[in-house]
Amino acid sequence: YLSDVLDPMHAADVAHLLEQIDARDRRALLVAWPGGLEGEILSELDEELREEVIEQLAPSELADAVRDLESDDVVDLVEYLDDAQQEAVLDALDASDRVVVEQALTYPEESAGRHMQSELVRAPEHWTVGEAIDYLRSDVVLPEQFYHIILVDPRLKATGYVTLGRILSHPRDTPLRDLTEDTFRTFHVAQDVEEVAQAINHYHMITAPVIDDDERIVGVITIDDAMAFLEEEAEEDILRLAGISEGSLSDRVIATTKRRFPWLAVNLVTAIFASLVISLFEETIAGLVALAVLMPIVASMGGNAGTQSLTVAVRALATRDLTTANVWRVIKREVLVGLINGLIFAVVMGVVGVVWFGSPMLGVVIAVAMVINMVVAGLAGTVIPVVLEKLGVDPALASGAFVTTVTDVVGFFAFLGLAAMWLL
Amino acid sequence: YLSDVLDPMHAADVAHLLEQIDARDRRALLVAWPGGLEGEILSELDEELREEVIEQLAPSELADAVRDLESDDVVDLVEYLDDAQQEAVLDALDASDRVVVEQALTYPEESAGRHMQSELVRAPEHWTVGEAIDYLRSDVVLPEQFYHIILVDPRLKATGYVTLGRILSHPRDTPLRDLTEDTFRTFHVAQDVEEVAQAINHYHMITAPVIDDDERIVGVITIDDAMAFLEEEAEEDILRLAGISEGSLSDRVIATTKRRFPWLAVNLVTAIFASLVISLFEETIAGLVALAVLMPIVASMGGNAGTQSLTVAVRALATRDLTTANVWRVIKREVLVGLINGLIFAVVMGVVGVVWFGSPMLGVVIAVAMVINMVVAGLAGTVIPVVLEKLGVDPALASGAFVTTVTDVVGFFAFLGLAAMWLL
Ligand SMILES: [Mg+2]
Ligand SMILES: [Mg+2]
Ligand SMILES: [Mg+2]
Ligand SMILES: [Mg+2]
Ligand SMILES: [Mg+2]
Ligand SMILES: [Mg+2]
Ligand SMILES: [Mg+2]
Ligand SMILES: [Mg+2]
Ligand SMILES: [Mg+2]
Ligand SMILES: [Mg+2]
Ligand SMILES: [Mg+2]
Ligand SMILES: [Mg+2]
Ligand SMILES: [Mg+2]
Repeated sequence: YLSDVLDPMHAADVAHLLEQIDARDRRALLVAWPGGLEGEILSELDEELREEVIEQLAPSELADAVRDLESDDVVDLVEYLDDAQQEAVLDALDASDRVVVEQALTYPEESAGRHMQSELVRAPEHWTVGEAIDYLRSDVVLPEQFYHIILVDPRLKATGYVTLGRILSHPRDTPLRDLTEDTFRTFHVAQDVEEVAQAINHYHMITAPVIDDDERIVGVITIDDAMAFLEEEAEEDILRLAGISEGSLSDRVIATTKRRFPWLAVNLVTAIFASLVISLFEETIAGLVALAVLMPIVASMGGNAGTQSLTVAVRALATRDLTTANVWRVIKREVLVGLINGLIFAVVMGVVGVVWFGSPMLGVVIAVAMVINMVVAGLAGTVIPVVLEKLGVDPALASGAFVTTVTDVVGFFAFLGLAAMWLL
Repeated sequence: YLSDVLDPMHAADVAHLLEQIDARDRRALLVAWPGGLEGEILSELDEELREEVIEQLAPSELADAVRDLESDDVVDLVEYLDDAQQEAVLDALDASDRVVVEQALTYPEESAGRHMQSELVRAPEHWTVGEAIDYLRSDVVLPEQFYHIILVDPRLKATGYVTLGRILSHPRDTPLRDLTEDTFRTFHVAQDVEEVAQAINHYHMITAPVIDDDERIVGVITIDDAMAFLEEEAEEDILRLAGISEGSLSDRVIATTKRRFPWLAVNLVTAIFASLVISLFEETIAGLVALAVLMPIVASMGGNAGTQSLTVAVRALATRDLTTANVWRVIKREVLVGLINGLIFAVVMGVVGVVWFGSPMLGVVIAVAMVINMVVAGLAGTVIPVVLEKLGVDPALASGAFVTTVTDVVGFFAFLGLAAMWLL
């Protein structure tokens, strides 16, 4: 039977399987495996598929599935559900869990408060190792996984944390306060969760404590969630750089077409713009058709050099490596790199121009245009992402269109303009 | 003094600071902060900078710095040092640590064995909670951080693991065997570390146990290292897709120029190839210069559509989402998406062609060429990365050159060829 195969599988593997098959097979599988779909599987599913699958569950099945999830996973599941489905899920929760989830939903979408789990272990800061162990062994409900005990003062303000390893390796009478880690730091509920995830990576934290306006501990973000989050952010940047909005490999044709369309439309406008530049030189081209043969080379080299610079800049902005402290040095470097590579390729293309078309002056024109365009590429490829970031526009999303427009326009204009001046 | 500011900073922050300033300031900082550079800081530094900094340390300073590092960090530091520096570091280690590091260096570069830390806590599988606690409280040397106890049989074969949280929350007489996690899995020393890191992300593991040929536990890969590793792999893919080999923002002009050059050289060859296609139609263009104005649009739209498809394919291959199970469905989808978007932009560009140049037949030519090129873009953008992966070539590295060559050649050939047939 299906359940003999699926039941023992890890939730993440079942989710992966559901992502690999097509929509019809997914529906058939869910029908043939009643009650098998646990909340963990829903959590692991691609967001786009989740909606499809949730629609096929009866409200009671859905409620059963979510009851054992941690609060961050419930929030993640319900945040984009329609009101009726959301209500069904929230009704399935205990009153206290429901309050926690509803509170989390009041925080901004990409905030620490929206992504934290409320399940954590805290202890009064004056406790000893023995008191902590006795507490953990009592019938208190503990999170499925936890790696720290967070120390709080009488007003629930977080003052430090202790790893379980240190608790286990010290005598019962050791004060927890003596075992805290000196790298302890907290994050505010309203803080950008990407910043928290980057801090977790940067400082090798396992647990990031989240506090509210009164500095009370209200949740933690765990490293496994931060890891998945950073992967998604990198994925998003890769796709945005290629002009694709979020989606998944299991999306259908129409959804995919829609996601690809906007960037292609932007590209069409910019390509027409570049063509207008060419059309200024129709007479020049009519006088020497070799120009039409060679002009895409100048534009293409500029476009590639510009894409190299902008990709480096976009990533460095995302990882906070490109800052006001080093932006001028990076701009200077990119321009110099453009100049040196421009000079090398100018010589190569100058020779190609002479050999191919037998005109030394044509060689000079393409060489000079090449240098100009590659210097501009280095400059535009760095300045444009930095300016977009300052303006609050995601540089991964918009830099490509701007930079390649600049390199196309400058490439065509420099090459055909110099040809009009020097050749005809 | 400098040390008043730097000493309390987290190693990762000091490393970040060193990455932000230029080489001269770095040298000055190291001179003014003698003995301050801890091993942790070296570990956190970008690999390219590490060599520069290590060269400035006296062998004894270097040896002091590495003595307290975990074995994976020592391996990471010494693996690319020259023999004299490597020897200096290895000499600083205890004999047993040295054996561990030398053993790790015998495993392949990107293997689990090369990236694991040997510091871990294991216990006989027949122990109880109480025995484990007594062992941890004894004067045994424990890793700086650990989150699991790994259970072993008498031959040191790993048979399961227990989280510290479960140990702490159960009575002393509970057998550890009753507390093991059912998602326990092990990884072989020779296994690709990227696969291990992806499994850690996929299964939300905190610790990945690494075993040797005899299934003995020899190390663990921790989630914080896996997280950093996956970030680096995503970074590598982003840069490779843009035609840049690894490097860092702090690289100098010459190093950067060298890293950018190869892809630009490849692009020049492919651009010349596309120009050869154009030159086949010099007479056609001489007969109607409007063709030179419009032809870059067809090539550019194909290039962008192809880049979208190839980026999706490259990422999906990297994350193991694109498999033999769904490759045909994805190819079919990409071709259909290309067809639909191609039809839409064909209509738009047909109209633009007619309005701009007053020639209905020119509109038809550009429209048909657009559809052909965008379908080819979807096909090439998916098939080329898949074939490269099958051939063992990193698709992130090479797909871009192939795909844009195909779309340039097909774009120019279709547009100018149809124009030659239908317009002249
Ligand atoms: Mg997945
Ligand atoms: Mg969970
Ligand atoms: Mg979410
Ligand atoms: Mg979670
Ligand atoms: Mg985001
Ligand atoms: Mg982003
Ligand atoms: Mg192009
Ligand atoms: Mg760094
Ligand atoms: Mg470490
Ligand atoms: Mg390494
Ligand atoms: Mg490590
Ligand atoms: Mg690699
Ligand atoms: Mg890779």
